[in-house]
Amino acid sequence: MFEQFHYHRRVAFCDTDAMKVVHHSNYLRYFEEARVAWLRARELSQWHAPHYPMTMAVLESRLRHHRPAYFDDLLTVSLTVRREKLKIRFRYVISSERFIGQAICEGETLHIPVDDEFRVCRLPEGLIRVLEVEPWIET
Amino acid sequence: MFEQFHYHRRVAFCDTDAMKVVHHSNYLRYFEEARVAWLRARELSQWHAPHYPMTMAVLESRLRHHRPAYFDDLLTVSLTVRREKLKIRFRYVISSERFIGQAICEGETLHIPVDDEFRVCRLPEGLIRVLEVEPWIET
Amino acid sequence: MFEQFHYHRRVAFCDTDAMKVVHHSNYLRYFEEARVAWLRARELSQWHAPHYPMTMAVLESRLRHHRPAYFDDLLTVSLTVRREKLKIRFRYVISSERFIGQAICEGETLHIPVDDEFRVCRLPEGLIRVLEVEPWIET
Amino acid sequence: MFEQFHYHRRVAFCDTDAMKVVHHSNYLRYFEEARVAWLRARELSQWHAPHYPMTMAVLESRLRHHRPAYFDDLLTVSLTVRREKLKIRFRYVISSERFIGQAICEGETLHIPVDDEFRVCRLPEGLIRVLEVEPWIET
Repeated sequence: MFEQFHYHRRVAFCDTDAMKVVHHSNYLRYFEEARVAWLRARELSQWHAPHYPMTMAVLESRLRHHRPAYFDDLLTVSLTVRREKLKIRFRYVISSERFIGQAICEGETLHIPVDDEFRVCRLPEGLIRVLEVEPWIET
Repeated sequence: MFEQFHYHRRVAFCDTDAMKVVHHSNYLRYFEEARVAWLRARELSQWHAPHYPMTMAVLESRLRHHRPAYFDDLLTVSLTVRREKLKIRFRYVISSERFIGQAICEGETLHIPVDDEFRVCRLPEGLIRVLEVEPWIET
Repeated sequence: MFEQFHYHRRVAFCDTDAMKVVHHSNYLRYFEEARVAWLRARELSQWHAPHYPMTMAVLESRLRHHRPAYFDDLLTVSLTVRREKLKIRFRYVISSERFIGQAICEGETLHIPVDDEFRVCRLPEGLIRVLEVEPWIET
Repeated sequence: MFEQFHYHRRVAFCDTDAMKVVHHSNYLRYFEEARVAWLRARELSQWHAPHYPMTMAVLESRLRHHRPAYFDDLLTVSLTVRREKLKIRFRYVISSERFIGQAICEGETLHIPVDDEFRVCRLPEGLIRVLEVEPWIET
């Protein structure tokens, strides 16, 4: 089994809003960055656009916010992923150096693989094999 | 009772991504624009920042995507809202001139009123009175 | 000659940053919205993607900021445009209801028409004819 | 003298647009990320918000685009900076692993230090001392 994947990023100034915290729409961007970084860490980038004619269209998203994030805070997105037949489900827990020991945001996205024309396609075998040894952490 | 509130906006070019469709993170921005337009339509802007020291912090969001939206598509966000004690829940159905008779996206956000320091505060009476005559449409 | 084109839009909450003002990167988005609205007002949308296989790639941009814009401010983007051989130059002056009689931001973008493959292409005749009767206002 | 500062970042999927390339408004965000990373590399973060009541308001920006950037491209922002009395000028050259030996984008931003209330303030001594040993590269 792989270890759980963690993605680190600092809060950019342009991600903040007039409440001086990260605007909630940016968490979906942070989740996406974590997915792309996970693909690279698992050596799966070759099975995804732009290297392969497949992307993972988002069907559903859910987010729960517990604490704010401020400019320059160092965030960690901890990601867990599993295959659900044709679909792939990702879960995310974001923690911050500012609030030790608690999640600032939790979320989930459900994806389906599609080709350039938005037609549902099969998951590549290389991707399926990795998903079989990827840990799923209930949160 | 008020009529249901509808907000119209076209898809901006910068909202699209390399799949040639609206990137999913933008739907949370469209929801927010619809909320702000609803506040204005109901003459409630005075009870919200920057005119009043209160904003409605987002606690939770959910989105389901059924169809894509493309550059320059005319979208309609149909909004419904209700008070849940201290909190306010909004539901959104987005339709597109491109796909008649079906929603392209559905979503929900749950908010809590906070002051400048992120302390939970009471809903202003003016806002509560409007919420009492606002329709709630189950979708 | 046409009258100068003006595009109106309110500042969205997500466009603000931790200084409580519009983040500077958003002005390029406001310029783009004004260009797209101008295309529609001049009945030129048919000569631009997604309706026609041409977009106007940005070669250069310049911005000067004089005053900030705040959440919910009503902004007006006044646009002027001229053809420079194969290229098109747009100039923008943004004014705000908050600061009467002065521009809050001025800018310029230089574009070249390209096809789907980023090959430089000719300006459609319909677009050229409009540019000949479009006023150019020196600022 | 310091060595020139270089900031690396990959193109996020949400940064692309329907032309399948990075939307031009994102380059201003990449410049900002490079400035913030430079502040950290020079141990100057303490002289900037949120750690110190000063930010560097943007007065002017200029961008020239030579080549596109695509999803997942590895970009390098090479930054050079100098003090101009009260102001600070940054120049940026962005290169891409995709186009060896040529800049894909060049730009410049001019800043003025302001406090929380947007009043012009002095540059902190610690920042001035670093600017004196920072190289300025003409491009």
